Amino acid sequence: MRMLSEASGSIAGAGALLTILRDGQARTRAELVQLTGLARSTLAQRLDALLSQRWIIPTEEAISSGGRPAVAFTFNRSARVVLSADLGATHARVAVTDLATEVLAERAAELPIDRGPEPTLTWLQRTFEEMLAETGHSFDQVCGIGVGLPGPVEHSSGRPVNPPIMPGWDGFPVPEWLGEHLGVPVLVDNDVNIMALGEHWSARPEADHLIFVKIGTGIGCGIISDRRLHRGAQGAAGDIGHIRVASALDTVCRCGNVGCLEAVAGGAAMAARLRAEGVEAVDSRDVIRLARSGNTQAVQLIRQAGRELGDVLASIVNFFNPSMIVIGGDIAEAGEQVLAGLREVIYSRSLPLATQHLSITASELGDRAGVIGAAVMVIDHVLSPDTVDQAVTRA
Amino acid sequence: MRMLSEASGSIAGAGALLTILRDGQARTRAELVQLTGLARSTLAQRLDALLSQRWIIPTEEAISSGGRPAVAFTFNRSARVVLSADLGATHARVAVTDLATEVLAERAAELPIDRGPEPTLTWLQRTFEEMLAETGHSFDQVCGIGVGLPGPVEHSSGRPVNPPIMPGWDGFPVPEWLGEHLGVPVLVDNDVNIMALGEHWSARPEADHLIFVKIGTGIGCGIISDRRLHRGAQGAAGDIGHIRVASALDTVCRCGNVGCLEAVAGGAAMAARLRAEGVEAVDSRDVIRLARSGNTQAVQLIRQAGRELGDVLASIVNFFNPSMIVIGGDIAEAGEQVLAGLREVIYSRSLPLATQHLSITASELGDRAGVIGAAVMVIDHVLSPDTVDQAVTRA
Repeated sequence: MRMLSEASGSIAGAGALLTILRDGQARTRAELVQLTGLARSTLAQRLDALLSQRWIIPTEEAISSGGRPAVAFTFNRSARVVLSADLGATHARVAVTDLATEVLAERAAELPIDRGPEPTLTWLQRTFEEMLAETGHSFDQVCGIGVGLPGPVEHSSGRPVNPPIMPGWDGFPVPEWLGEHLGVPVLVDNDVNIMALGEHWSARPEADHLIFVKIGTGIGCGIISDRRLHRGAQGAAGDIGHIRVASALDTVCRCGNVGCLEAVAGGAAMAARLRAEGVEAVDSRDVIRLARSGNTQAVQLIRQAGRELGDVLASIVNFFNPSMIVIGGDIAEAGEQVLAGLREVIYSRSLPLATQHLSITASELGDRAGVIGAAVMVIDHVLSPDTVDQAVTRA
Repeated sequence: MRMLSEASGSIAGAGALLTILRDGQARTRAELVQLTGLARSTLAQRLDALLSQRWIIPTEEAISSGGRPAVAFTFNRSARVVLSADLGATHARVAVTDLATEVLAERAAELPIDRGPEPTLTWLQRTFEEMLAETGHSFDQVCGIGVGLPGPVEHSSGRPVNPPIMPGWDGFPVPEWLGEHLGVPVLVDNDVNIMALGEHWSARPEADHLIFVKIGTGIGCGIISDRRLHRGAQGAAGDIGHIRVASALDTVCRCGNVGCLEAVAGGAAMAARLRAEGVEAVDSRDVIRLARSGNTQAVQLIRQAGRELGDVLASIVNFFNPSMIVIGGDIAEAGEQVLAGLREVIYSRSLPLATQHLSITASELGDRAGVIGAAVMVIDHVLSPDTVDQAVTRA
């Protein structure tokens, strides 16, 4: 242990220093000594390490007492860019952002995930290249890639785990494949997890405990506990689409079981039910289109789906006591219809103490929650104290 | 901000230093400089502050190279004692522990919580006094008091919030009342939360995501997410006893609603059902006694209660993906009967990915989970970096 400390001692701690500076405020050497208690020579080594990687930049700041300007240091949000992608069942959204998640370029496209990993990731790689060219950046400036996928992902390896709607993807080494081609770290997670991250980080920073529910083709949720993403023991947390509900006990789900919530309240299930009633509907977006144009069957289905989902969430509210439930995904675009059904059930069935300050609302980021969240995931990793320490030690 | 830093600058950071030393390993000044990067003078100030409070003690340690002994510093687990109490619906357990949660003295007693706060806390205060005398400690050596109560508690104020089975306790200022008499900080939480803390800290430190379910008179659970207690937005997380289940829709719960889980699977409900069948049973302990003596009605009820609870937990497993579910409380003493029913339902209804490494087991600490957990709650607070910084600043 001592040897390790000695070998990396001079710049271990650079990451902790960067964490202080990430708030964007400029600080002088004297202020940083004061804040951290570090020896001046140690501070100098850490600042040099961060400067050499351009994570921070020097600025000149006048001292209020009227002396000559002292050098101050500030976080450099343009030091690198992030590539992020939110791949859904049928469509994809891709973005380039800076280190404060500002979107520099963005694209949406039809992209069925069931084409398999190689065609999908080849398309993604080409799209990233084109968008980087568009924003005038080179690969050298990319600090990481974040990808959301519509199925369970083992976050530590970035590999999908038995994803039900992604033939060919089970165990596919997404990070190695994308990283080999692009030469940067690649983080992969479930699409609903990154949506929860994005919504929490950029629109609801005040909510300590947040549940983000995506209602698209299927149903799933991302969980923020105490301001951090709760992924669970196998990264499978939030898979509420396959919770058994009484009204679905005679319905077979696409997962092969009977009784799953998404077999009655998911977009695909609603479209199928409309077809059975003679209404033309292929997927969740058709259900929304019909509801918006006033089709009463579609409106009733969506409202009832809200109640079914509310039934499941009422139990989860008792268990988890969130401060906020956010609804996203295609079906959420029929916002008030879903929310009305949801609220009706949750407020009647959950405990008063758990609902007295509970806010139930539609996503503010909408379609963008996923790409913003994928960028947040990458930035939190790349700027974490340990990662920064390793980066400056290697450099 | 600068003024604040200057005023407390010399010893802010003492708490962070203590956190390093809490692992019990002795370290020299040189080793601490190496580990922290602190200036020698800053380190000296922080060590002095911790020594003056006796949080650490100096030891002499031979240097391996054969030089003369250097002074090393180590955490002093006997610096203070903790008073902890687990107050249930009908009985109480009280303990005195050291700063590593070792129990120095312990007592159990019948104590109906519905007697109201003043008689209960007067008894508790007298018991604390007697036990301190027994272990040869004075009040000056008490660093804090931890109390678990059988109802919802607003953790920040330590006050019960509409507790259904605690007449007279709603909003009662437990910390002020006990603190006024004893002159030390008092932390209060729900009894199941402290049981989860105790079980996790002392018996299951390897489980990152743990759910501790107490089945006694009622049913509730404590939640560990990412190694930390998840209390939820109003401190109401874990209140699964009032989740609606289909089999209870014609049963009125003591909370006044119909359909609650604990109205069919709680100890009080089981005792009532046995009475209706002509079997003599007053409370959950009678149900256990009957089951142990081979009464088939009691055995069947407990097994069915396991299935009902399993139905609720199967949904929670999909949502939360815990690595471990621990069953505690009176009814858990009929361990295998409850666990068999639970496992039967959870393994058939939850997603395979979420159950493949899930462990479902009985509490290892048993009756002691609460008092150990109350001590953990106090120690984590008293030795947190911020609290230590404030303590040494005041001293």
